[in-house]
Amino acid sequence: MSTLRYDVTTNDWVIVAPSRARRPIEQPLRNTVSPKTAVQSCPFCPGNERMTPPEIDAVRPGSNLNADDWRVRVIPNLFPALQIEENPDSRTESSSFFRYRGGCGAHEVFIESPHHELALGDQPPDQIVLLFQMLQRRYNDLLRDPRFQAILIFKNHGEWAGTSMHHPHCQLIATPVVPRQSRQKFTIAEEYYDRTGVGLYSRLLEEELNEQTRVLAVNEGFAAVLPYASHVPFETWILPRTQQSSFGSVPSSQLPALAEILKRALRAIHAGLDNPSFNMTIDTAPRGDESKPWFLWHIQILPRLTRRSGFELGSGMPINTVLPEDAASFLRDVDRANAIGD
Amino acid sequence: MSTLRYDVTTNDWVIVAPSRARRPIEQPLRNTVSPKTAVQSCPFCPGNERMTPPEIDAVRPGSNLNADDWRVRVIPNLFPALQIEENPDSRTESSSFFRYRGGCGAHEVFIESPHHELALGDQPPDQIVLLFQMLQRRYNDLLRDPRFQAILIFKNHGEWAGTSMHHPHCQLIATPVVPRQSRQKFTIAEEYYDRTGVGLYSRLLEEELNEQTRVLAVNEGFAAVLPYASHVPFETWILPRTQQSSFGSVPSSQLPALAEILKRALRAIHAGLDNPSFNMTIDTAPRGDESKPWFLWHIQILPRLTRRSGFELGSGMPINTVLPEDAASFLRDVDRANAIGD
Repeated sequence: MSTLRYDVTTNDWVIVAPSRARRPIEQPLRNTVSPKTAVQSCPFCPGNERMTPPEIDAVRPGSNLNADDWRVRVIPNLFPALQIEENPDSRTESSSFFRYRGGCGAHEVFIESPHHELALGDQPPDQIVLLFQMLQRRYNDLLRDPRFQAILIFKNHGEWAGTSMHHPHCQLIATPVVPRQSRQKFTIAEEYYDRTGVGLYSRLLEEELNEQTRVLAVNEGFAAVLPYASHVPFETWILPRTQQSSFGSVPSSQLPALAEILKRALRAIHAGLDNPSFNMTIDTAPRGDESKPWFLWHIQILPRLTRRSGFELGSGMPINTVLPEDAASFLRDVDRANAIGD
Repeated sequence: MSTLRYDVTTNDWVIVAPSRARRPIEQPLRNTVSPKTAVQSCPFCPGNERMTPPEIDAVRPGSNLNADDWRVRVIPNLFPALQIEENPDSRTESSSFFRYRGGCGAHEVFIESPHHELALGDQPPDQIVLLFQMLQRRYNDLLRDPRFQAILIFKNHGEWAGTSMHHPHCQLIATPVVPRQSRQKFTIAEEYYDRTGVGLYSRLLEEELNEQTRVLAVNEGFAAVLPYASHVPFETWILPRTQQSSFGSVPSSQLPALAEILKRALRAIHAGLDNPSFNMTIDTAPRGDESKPWFLWHIQILPRLTRRSGFELGSGMPINTVLPEDAASFLRDVDRANAIGD
């Protein structure tokens, strides 16, 4: 039997069909390519700084740019999707029907750790705090540039998630437009606030914490939940428990709690699902809307265990083959075992 | 250098970044799993009819249901995403914040040919016409059921497209709601019509035919184009050249022209890109809007050559690494070579 669940944040209906997990093909996607590149040929490893473009920023005890003593390092993407030099103005082709703009933007890579093999969830909490500090610093710095309307921070882990480099890293792209999908989620939250006087994401979090069945972990500042209308199996969100619309405005005092809960979620997913490929994205208010009370910035962890088929591409309706309640219960067990192992 | 192109049908901005195709990972996805299943164990092969649920419909010279003399056969999906028995009414969980419905719908499989190895583009034109006739028949039959609001016809070809069966087949899912994505495309077209008095898709087709650079093929009834703001490399649309909002209302006299142009497009993609995985979907007006003048139903062929990364998941902005003009020029050359080979 299957059910349609309504996603209040996107207005999508999600098909939840656990019986489809029995199909012959539905083995979860596994990483088959050996992920190890030799450290001496990895441009993200310490000592190989000359193999990358000059750094944009870094955390290091010393003061020599591009030296090998960094703990977190930020460099331009060598194959940028958008470039800062392009003209952002909107233009039209000769026909005036087809419209385009220069690909103006920024595309930066954050090397999360000097250690080639240390996945984000395995890094010490203070290393994850350093990463969050650097992400916030670059995020807030780029938002000062009036050409950028939105900033997406994301991570691709494993071959099914589209990564081309094994060394742990995440990325940031600043875009000259607010992506329609972000604008739409923000507008839905705004309309909900107008109608009810309550923040949609605060309400969602409150309901999830009340029901408990889809909660993975809670600490003093944040909660990790598997949303009621998850689009993919084991989708996990991390939300702040106080009103924060923008990732850029998380108080630095709360970054250790954020690092702690992210580490728990990533470790549970890694151990429970045998190091699956996953994407991680940070959904945050667009430029100029950072203090609006109707949004909560949040992290989305999206394991890549299944492929999207023609139905999902053509309809936009996700088919999720794992009940979020079952996924949360499974990950809670792994999280408890991880805690005992510590 | 990269460019943002505006998709007038979805209001998305698409990043066109050919330079990113040089990244180390950007080998196009290739089918690695041997696609051959033994004919004797294939439930879609003639003689194995008892291995499937009883048929819903078939084209055959004889009159015995489930006999092996069929040319096109329709059966229920053994692992349905939605089922006709479910109650379609909207309900809420006890909290009244989380909303769901029973997964009421239909999920049918169309076996396109008795031949296990004959891909859709390799089938004789009259066989493709039989398939379209059967798709139309089931489409129009299911639309008579007031519980169904929209019908999506789709095809998954190859391992990267999410298929679990090698024998050529396509599928149909009838949903009790209009998917948000379909509703949104339809609304955008409606607003364009209100503002300009012109159909958005007719205008788009006219502009593409004027510019010619992205046109793959044209015949008396249809055109195959690679749209200006293609979301993925080698994305190809087939559109009617006369006003037709619904796939269900294509005159039977035009089905041979439709089969001819689809065959040309699929053969060019197959030969030019080394039998890539692809999805195909039919985008058509929702129930009750079948005669609205602002929409053109169309086929979308979406080759699965690249993986979506965290940026695309988090922003909804596609990154296309191949200029549609270059892709169209390449496929036109292949199409010409195919014609000479015939």
